[in-house]
Order: sequence, then structure tokens, then C-alpha cells
Amino acid sequence: MRAVVLDAPGPPEALRIRELAVPEPRPGWVLVRIKSFGINRSELHTRLGLAQGVTFPRVLGIEATGVVAAAPGGEFEVGQQVAAMMGGMGRTFDGGYAEFTNVPATQVIAFRSELDWATLGAIPEMLQTAHGSLTVGLDAQRGQTLLIRGGTSSVGMAAAILAKDRGLAVLSTTRRTDRVGALEAIGVDHVLIDDGDVAAQARAIVPDGVDAAIELVGTNTLPDTLRATAVHGVVCFTGMLSNQWTVADFYPIEYIPSGVRLTAYGGDAADLPTDVLQAYLDAVAAGRLTVPIHRTYALDEIPQAHADMEHGRATGKLVVLP
Amino acid sequence: MRAVVLDAPGPPEALRIRELAVPEPRPGWVLVRIKSFGINRSELHTRLGLAQGVTFPRVLGIEATGVVAAAPGGEFEVGQQVAAMMGGMGRTFDGGYAEFTNVPATQVIAFRSELDWATLGAIPEMLQTAHGSLTVGLDAQRGQTLLIRGGTSSVGMAAAILAKDRGLAVLSTTRRTDRVGALEAIGVDHVLIDDGDVAAQARAIVPDGVDAAIELVGTNTLPDTLRATAVHGVVCFTGMLSNQWTVADFYPIEYIPSGVRLTAYGGDAADLPTDVLQAYLDAVAAGRLTVPIHRTYALDEIPQAHADMEHGRATGKLVVLP
Repeated sequence: MRAVVLDAPGPPEALRIRELAVPEPRPGWVLVRIKSFGINRSELHTRLGLAQGVTFPRVLGIEATGVVAAAPGGEFEVGQQVAAMMGGMGRTFDGGYAEFTNVPATQVIAFRSELDWATLGAIPEMLQTAHGSLTVGLDAQRGQTLLIRGGTSSVGMAAAILAKDRGLAVLSTTRRTDRVGALEAIGVDHVLIDDGDVAAQARAIVPDGVDAAIELVGTNTLPDTLRATAVHGVVCFTGMLSNQWTVADFYPIEYIPSGVRLTAYGGDAADLPTDVLQAYLDAVAAGRLTVPIHRTYALDEIPQAHADMEHGRATGKLVVLP
Repeated sequence: MRAVVLDAPGPPEALRIRELAVPEPRPGWVLVRIKSFGINRSELHTRLGLAQGVTFPRVLGIEATGVVAAAPGGEFEVGQQVAAMMGGMGRTFDGGYAEFTNVPATQVIAFRSELDWATLGAIPEMLQTAHGSLTVGLDAQRGQTLLIRGGTSSVGMAAAILAKDRGLAVLSTTRRTDRVGALEAIGVDHVLIDDGDVAAQARAIVPDGVDAAIELVGTNTLPDTLRATAVHGVVCFTGMLSNQWTVADFYPIEYIPSGVRLTAYGGDAADLPTDVLQAYLDAVAAGRLTVPIHRTYALDEIPQAHADMEHGRATGKLVVLP
């Protein structure tokens, strides 16, 4: 099979197409014939050498969508549509940048859909992260105001779509005026141009501060996002678009405004229940929800996809059809 | 007047009794004849050279209780009972370790009470911090479970008393078995001996984790307190009994369990409304609430009081009667 291998951290061209043996089916694992997969910042971090616990050489890819090729443990039927993600995939064992991948059955979610594979491949990780941030992270409720910092990222757009569907008012940020239309098109109520003082803009709309916020940029924008949030409001730190995810000398009383709540969401496949994935797919099929896709790539265009992600050229998800 | 002056950070003996002029009354400020005042860890931090923004020589003391000696701006009447605290008191201007102090009127709270001055002096800062942590910090609600980390501190005991009064179930920690009785006496439901794994003990009682927690020890125990707390539960970082209040390389996704909320409470006199102070005093006078006082000291015993605080010998508040 064809696979994209990273021998060691490096530039986009370090991602090399190789011919590898199709992984051997084994009990408790599911061999998936990959039809499509999304590109994630997690893989960019790995390529840049910023991720911990990754061993090389490695087939990258923390998610994949396709059909079951083998399931010796009997957890799934051959031919069944499935998504797989997380749990060491593409990090401690070979992942989804390939034609086949072997994944523990616990990380596999079955679904049924007539949607095209590009759309199906765009959804799992993006939906899991957006859904997990809104539920596990924020416990977001109808009628609340939600600020999304890093709004034009795929997770930011998915979170906006889910939040509107749940009846929240959504404020979403972008640094680029040419992306305002993309955010308005998915139903964002207030697009804020991120000039570093989003708190002032948010409070001009919601004087007491927003009820909830998803921080997708990093610790460089987190203090401003905390200032945009109401007392007893919650900021969920989920993403790291900026590659800055630590605070050098964190003093809670100085960093967190009194009574504002900081939480975090670290993705986990278990946070995306089968019925949530299926409901989202059905809603997309019915035209009620959309999937923000930037563009699709062939397997050998992955270096280009990585470069597009690294340079912030994407609005929505990058999807590969191997 | 007699006052306790610190010329520079040092051991308890660096706190020297001096004869100073009574401060001049000035408009917008209130001259208070001090009847009693509490000793706070804030002052210990100042003495140890750990506080920022303090200039020397300085009369320490971030709180004082007494009667109005002069109020040129007319905000209060001479002879009125008042408490004063925070806002630079004992840090950027001379504070309460004295027979008189001059304080901005905005930091002065009037009350009426027949309680003795030792009791009255123990309350303001302790109550403000405990009340602020439960309200601004935690928004604590009847029926919730509350974990207090550092339970035998004055704030920890005041928080337990207030929380029981509000109808919460209280778990409170101490490192010393000989202090279990003191916590039970103020109505704590479950005393936990802090062995470093309070999370396991708390979850043996509340399997899903506590709804709320007040962290009074510091960042050395904070990760364990976060692990003791339920998803969507809140930990309020308030105190620093341990003198450890920063995290070196704070990575939110690794530090904060998914969906657990971290907030902080930095005291402010404005967070103690007049009616809350008055209601607490009235409840104490009626015998419905108690005031956890360790012991009282004379002004020239302040070095002893500081040594008692520094070595963790106190259970409840240290109060000085100048």
C-alpha cells in the first residue's frame, strides 16, 4: 500500500510517499481501508518536532475514515463504514496517512451515510474536538453567548455550526477581513477581527462578558479571552493554532480574573458518541448543517496540505483522498 | 502612637515597635483608632520578601478594626465602628499593625456589634476571603459538595462555617490528626487527613468528584485538588499557605483535567458587602455561627504571632489587641 512516512521532524517535504506492506489484521484491532482522512494540527506539531511521545519512522495521521477490511475480533463487519481516531494513532503506532490502517477496536466508530468520502473524512476529529469542547469542556446551554477564538479553523467553524444548532449566540474571531463572509455563511452572529484586544470588542456586544469561550489559538491569546469572559463564565482551552501552549510562570490569582473559569479539553475518541456522529452526518445529508472543507488533496499532495496549514492558508478542513 | 515597622524583609524579630506620629486626617480618607486586627499570610509574605509592590519602611497590616477617629470627607461619623482592609493597606501605605491607621474611605465598612474586639478583629479579612471564594469564586449552591484544602487555616474554617450555613456538604483537609476535632466542632462533614492524595479520599466519599473546592495551600497541592473535582466542578485558587503559588510550565490541557474548571479569587474589600459582614456579626452574636480564633496577642507580641503563623502552629485566626 501507499503511505506517507515521516522519518524525522522536518519541512513539508520530509513527508515521503513509500510503498509499505498492508498491516496484518490482529484480534482486538480493526483493519480499515481508508477512503479519506482529515489533516490536523496535531500532525503539524509532530512534523515540526513539537509533539511528545512520538517515535520515528512513523506513518502520521490521527484520524481516518473508510470501510472495515478486517476485524478478527468480530467487533465490526467487513465493509462497514467506520471512522477511527486518537489514542496513539499516528503517534505511537502508524496512522491514517495511508491506504490502510490498523486501529484498536475501542477507537473505531461505525456510521452509515451516503455522503461523499471527502465530506465524511473531514468530520470525525473536527466534530469530536468541537463537540467535546462544547459538552465536556463548556457544558454549553441554549441562550448562552459563546466566543470562539480562532474561528476560521476547522474546529472553530464546526464549533460555531454546533453551537448555533444548540441555540447559542456565537461570536467568532478571525485576523483576516476576507474571512468574515465564510464565518457569516455558517451562521456566526458577530465576527470579530482579532486585533489582540478581542475582550473589548466582545464586551461592546456582551457588556458583562461572554458565558463561554473556546480558545483555539493558544496561550498567547488566552489572557485576552479570559478578560472577554463573564464572572462564572468558562473558557475552554482546546487548540493551539499558534504553536504556543504553555505559560512560563503561571500564577492563578494574577492570570485568571476572579471568578472566571478556565478549563481544557484534550480530545478523546470516547467523547464522540456514535449517535452524535451519526446525527451530524444525517443533519449534513439533510442540508441542515454544513461541513467546512477548505479543499481536498491526493496522497502525494500532503506536503502541499501541510504547507497550507502551516502558513494559515486554510479556512476549514483539509481532506485527503488516498 | 505605637506601631510595628518593618524596615526590610527578615525574620520575625525584624518587626520592630516604634513610636510614630498619629497620621494626619485628610479628605477622602478615614482615620481609624484601631481596637484589634487580624494577622494574615499576606503580611508573612511581605516579611519574607515574597510580596511584590511593597515599599519600606512600612507599617504592615492589610486589615484593622476599630472606631472612626476622623473622617474629614464626612463619609463616616466619629466613633462609628468600622473595619478597613486591602487596597494597598500595609503594602503601599502604612497599615493596621498600629494604634491608628489612615485608610481610603472606599475601603472602610461600617458595622454595629456588641461583640468583643478580639472577635470583631478576627473577622473582616477572613470573612471577605471565605465569602469571596464561595460567591465570586465558586458561586456555591445549597446541596453541593465542597472540598476545602487547608481546612484548619482561618479562611478554611470560615469557609466551612459559611458553607455549612449555606447548606453545602463540606470535606475539609488537615495534615494533623490532632486537628480533626477542631474541624468537626465547626460542622465539617468529612475531615480528610492530607497525605498528598486527597483526590482518592474525596472520591471514596463523592465518587464523581466534588462540585466545588477551595485551594488554600498552593500550587503544590492544586493538581491533586483538581483531580478530586467533578467534570464541570470548580476549583477556586485562593490561598497560599505553602508559599508556593506559581506553576513553572503551565500547559492547560495537561494540568487541568478535561472539563474541570479552575478559577481564582484575589481578595477585594468590595467583595465583602456591608450586609454580609453585619449578618455574620449578628449570627455570631446570636450563637448561630462561630469565629475560629487561635489566640490573641499584644502589639509587642507580633513577632511571636508571626513565628506561630510561619511554623503552622495556628488553628484559626491570630488576633492582636494593640
